[in-house]
Amino acid sequence: MAAAGVVANGPKEEKQAVGIDGPTNPMVTPLLNDLYQFTMAYAYWKGGKHNERAVFDLYFRRNPFGGEYTVFAGLEECIRFIANFRFTEDEIAFVQASLPPSCEIGFYDYLRGIDCSDVEIHAISEGFVVFPKIPLMRVEGPVAVVQLLETPLVNLINYASLVATNAARHRFVAGKSKLLLEFGLRRAQGPDGGIGASKYCYMGGFDATSNVAAGKLFGIPLRGTHSHAFVSSFMSPDEITEKSLKSSDSSNICEDFVSLVQAWLSKLKWSQLLGGIFGETNQSELAAFASYALAFPKNFLALVDTYDVMRSGVPNFCAVALALNDLGYKALGIRLDSGDLAYQSCETRKFFQAIEKEFGVADFGRTNITASNDLNEETLDALNKQGHEIDAFGIGTHLVTCYAQPALGVVFKLVEINNQPRIKLSEDVSKVSIPCKKRCYRLYGKEGYPLVDIMTGENEPSPKVGERILCRHPFNESKRAYVVPKRVEELLKCFWPGRSGKEREELPPIKLIRERCINQLNLMRPDHMRRLNPTPYKVSVSAKLYDFIHFLWLNEAPVGELQ
Amino acid sequence: MAAAGVVANGPKEEKQAVGIDGPTNPMVTPLLNDLYQFTMAYAYWKGGKHNERAVFDLYFRRNPFGGEYTVFAGLEECIRFIANFRFTEDEIAFVQASLPPSCEIGFYDYLRGIDCSDVEIHAISEGFVVFPKIPLMRVEGPVAVVQLLETPLVNLINYASLVATNAARHRFVAGKSKLLLEFGLRRAQGPDGGIGASKYCYMGGFDATSNVAAGKLFGIPLRGTHSHAFVSSFMSPDEITEKSLKSSDSSNICEDFVSLVQAWLSKLKWSQLLGGIFGETNQSELAAFASYALAFPKNFLALVDTYDVMRSGVPNFCAVALALNDLGYKALGIRLDSGDLAYQSCETRKFFQAIEKEFGVADFGRTNITASNDLNEETLDALNKQGHEIDAFGIGTHLVTCYAQPALGVVFKLVEINNQPRIKLSEDVSKVSIPCKKRCYRLYGKEGYPLVDIMTGENEPSPKVGERILCRHPFNESKRAYVVPKRVEELLKCFWPGRSGKEREELPPIKLIRERCINQLNLMRPDHMRRLNPTPYKVSVSAKLYDFIHFLWLNEAPVGELQ
Repeated sequence: MAAAGVVANGPKEEKQAVGIDGPTNPMVTPLLNDLYQFTMAYAYWKGGKHNERAVFDLYFRRNPFGGEYTVFAGLEECIRFIANFRFTEDEIAFVQASLPPSCEIGFYDYLRGIDCSDVEIHAISEGFVVFPKIPLMRVEGPVAVVQLLETPLVNLINYASLVATNAARHRFVAGKSKLLLEFGLRRAQGPDGGIGASKYCYMGGFDATSNVAAGKLFGIPLRGTHSHAFVSSFMSPDEITEKSLKSSDSSNICEDFVSLVQAWLSKLKWSQLLGGIFGETNQSELAAFASYALAFPKNFLALVDTYDVMRSGVPNFCAVALALNDLGYKALGIRLDSGDLAYQSCETRKFFQAIEKEFGVADFGRTNITASNDLNEETLDALNKQGHEIDAFGIGTHLVTCYAQPALGVVFKLVEINNQPRIKLSEDVSKVSIPCKKRCYRLYGKEGYPLVDIMTGENEPSPKVGERILCRHPFNESKRAYVVPKRVEELLKCFWPGRSGKEREELPPIKLIRERCINQLNLMRPDHMRRLNPTPYKVSVSAKLYDFIHFLWLNEAPVGELQ
Repeated sequence: MAAAGVVANGPKEEKQAVGIDGPTNPMVTPLLNDLYQFTMAYAYWKGGKHNERAVFDLYFRRNPFGGEYTVFAGLEECIRFIANFRFTEDEIAFVQASLPPSCEIGFYDYLRGIDCSDVEIHAISEGFVVFPKIPLMRVEGPVAVVQLLETPLVNLINYASLVATNAARHRFVAGKSKLLLEFGLRRAQGPDGGIGASKYCYMGGFDATSNVAAGKLFGIPLRGTHSHAFVSSFMSPDEITEKSLKSSDSSNICEDFVSLVQAWLSKLKWSQLLGGIFGETNQSELAAFASYALAFPKNFLALVDTYDVMRSGVPNFCAVALALNDLGYKALGIRLDSGDLAYQSCETRKFFQAIEKEFGVADFGRTNITASNDLNEETLDALNKQGHEIDAFGIGTHLVTCYAQPALGVVFKLVEINNQPRIKLSEDVSKVSIPCKKRCYRLYGKEGYPLVDIMTGENEPSPKVGERILCRHPFNESKRAYVVPKRVEELLKCFWPGRSGKEREELPPIKLIRERCINQLNLMRPDHMRRLNPTPYKVSVSAKLYDFIHFLWLNEAPVGELQ
């Protein structure tokens, strides 16, 4: 528990190893896998090849959402999975039932014995800003075991990184001063689509979630108010039977809070500044607001669009808020969930300010306005352009399902086996893999921005501060540049040492990963981060690695015969 | 277990009630909820309103993917959730820590005591074809309890129905004769995004999945072969040490299968019909294929695009397949995973047919061709138009993430409380809810097609076969039609009777739901189902319900004051 550094009161795990909890979702087991990983493992085993030492790189080929950056997330869940990777007898029996009956029984004894103690994992730290082609994880170990890790690791990284990136992009458009709330659980792709979204949106820079389970599992701040159903469940203020409310300091009791609210509503209706904006407000809505305020006098936040925002919801809210104010309570604010959010927020702000002015209620003009309703990067951007008075955004569907691009193409490619570099060719150059067990560095320029990421062979000397190094595009021979780094950061760190004796990097708590992510995003040169036509960040290989890639490519590609 | 009718060897559940297993994913608990469900429950409780009898409808407003139909899925998981709905002490403690400290302690005793024994759920059967506005589920019970069900139920239905619909649409384009394989686990939105995808794609008409966990949980057939990594893990045939292979009938042993393969490759290279198509094939690929065949002589299926499909992969496959054939084995086929699938499949077919002809190997021309690589409805449609020779499609990313539309807008709206119908208004007419506790019917015409779905008030007489009934558009007064149904099907059935004493509908096994779904899709009039510009299926209300909706609407909408 302490090792994983996470507030986890989650589902109990049968399997535990080296003090690292299992995955948050107990369904993440070695069977969460494609069948072909097992058929391949069998073929490796049958051919006596299963213990050959292989190196696989996990990486993606293109940044999502038309952008030029990605936030790396999901690592902790991968390490939790690795740390607890063992087959149960039940699982082995199912694998046996799923493979052809001709498979030798010895294979299942082999499965019975494997774990990840001979696997070594280097990875970029979770929350880092990352780029295409650079390995996010380098997984080394017996080929059959590492093959069995492919699907779970890719699954755990793909959506995590995608949705964290989506959250970071929403934060970028909304601006640092706004409160961003993740409200996506009901529209997420399944139960832990929801839980994963809450976790990784927080990591990517959101402030809170509505998802109680995620709050419990990860310690993410929770937010929530009430829904339209609550409002329409009331018929009239008459049905409120318990109407008394103590003042904030408990010094006195208002025996009929509902009448106090009604009195304020009447004052607003006939007020100088607000007269004529509204007539009769909806009384079931008023009843709902009053009832909610009686339940949460210190936390009154009302959804104001069930009937009509300016002619009912906002006046009703203000009447309740002013009644609360009489008793020493400060209402939290309103939520808008439909219609023209920019216009409504500005009109509501004016309404609040008029009340502050006419009735002398300090700060009433600054009462919080939250907006929700199918928000995404585009609508946030449009709201900014129109001008609005919204303080907080509740974002659901588009955020958590990554509506603009619902998948990231993370892949897992063999780059070396038995110390022999391997390459995967393709007619599409962007799909050719970069062979060799590699090291990766981020080189920073004199202004403090990262300039370029570079991959080198494992045994090449590392780039040095102040020393000129040639950075080459891996596939385009004309693209190359000399760089004299002011700072050199090695990207891949050892998160699972296996038998190597290396020190294992700690898995920090989610709050620290979130801070790291926000810092990383701030560190980037702004033109890489902009929403429209961002500049691609450069990803390169050393001159030596470049030469080797192209030697191997020629070597492996078949030569046709003209006849 | 028997009641739920599912092969579930899944994670164990602490809580069980009335013989129905808990949700497949043990993370589906009453805390998988939006915080506001708890604040509302508290406000209902504080106001003494929590036991008021409420009716909520769960429905969606628009069919996904630009289509005119949706497959309803996720019901069994909802009923499993309902049947086991109880708070643990740990969960109650967390809710208490999450609500304001001013909340009265009695509320937590209340939470401690609640379950769904007083909740009644009617639903459309899982696997049915469904349409907008018609309640998929009608949930009735104490308002505070039902409020707490909203988020989990919506979450469990949303993605399930979306991805089942997506699968059905892919099946529609691929045609009934093709084998459809779901290969999406690694790109799914999180671990049970993957498991849910496998379950509901099978339900929507796919034949198998690569996802082993889903195979174990739901009894879905599994498929898989090998990846590019397997191919590139080999260097040359020399590394194969165990080269002997028994014949299919065990009557003799081939001591050097690899040499037999090499001999066939040479024959193919110099054959009359195939000469010149290829020269030297990639030897590491040949080694991988031979090794895989030695492991799975009865199940040999090879991925042929690691280096070059026609100049290496297909000839290498055929050499191995012909060697297997000599020993009485029949190779399963190849998989294409890149490039021009239509062209490659046709060229491969010709290659297979030439072998059948030249070497007299019966049926070799019909060897299976599987294609994968970012397939979706559009690419399947394009393949059909180009002409292809593909027998099976492996579909991943686009299918499981519902790339074309990654969310379905399922909502949960209060329609009645204390026998009082309630309506939720909106400036957007499509968002106005249809009030009243309702019954829903599907009316069939004389040609056997469903003609229209109709909602009536709970106590209206049901439509009768042969009797003329007026079906009205719920919001457009000019749209109405008389229908004389040849068959009347009541859509909402009782899946959770609560204390009503009604009989509970059984939850059938997934294979039966899949058959039901396929039958339902076949039953629809073709113009509703076509991919481009399908005809909307009609959804209506009775004349009486129409009048009532509009009476209530006028009653609730605020009236402005002109001054």
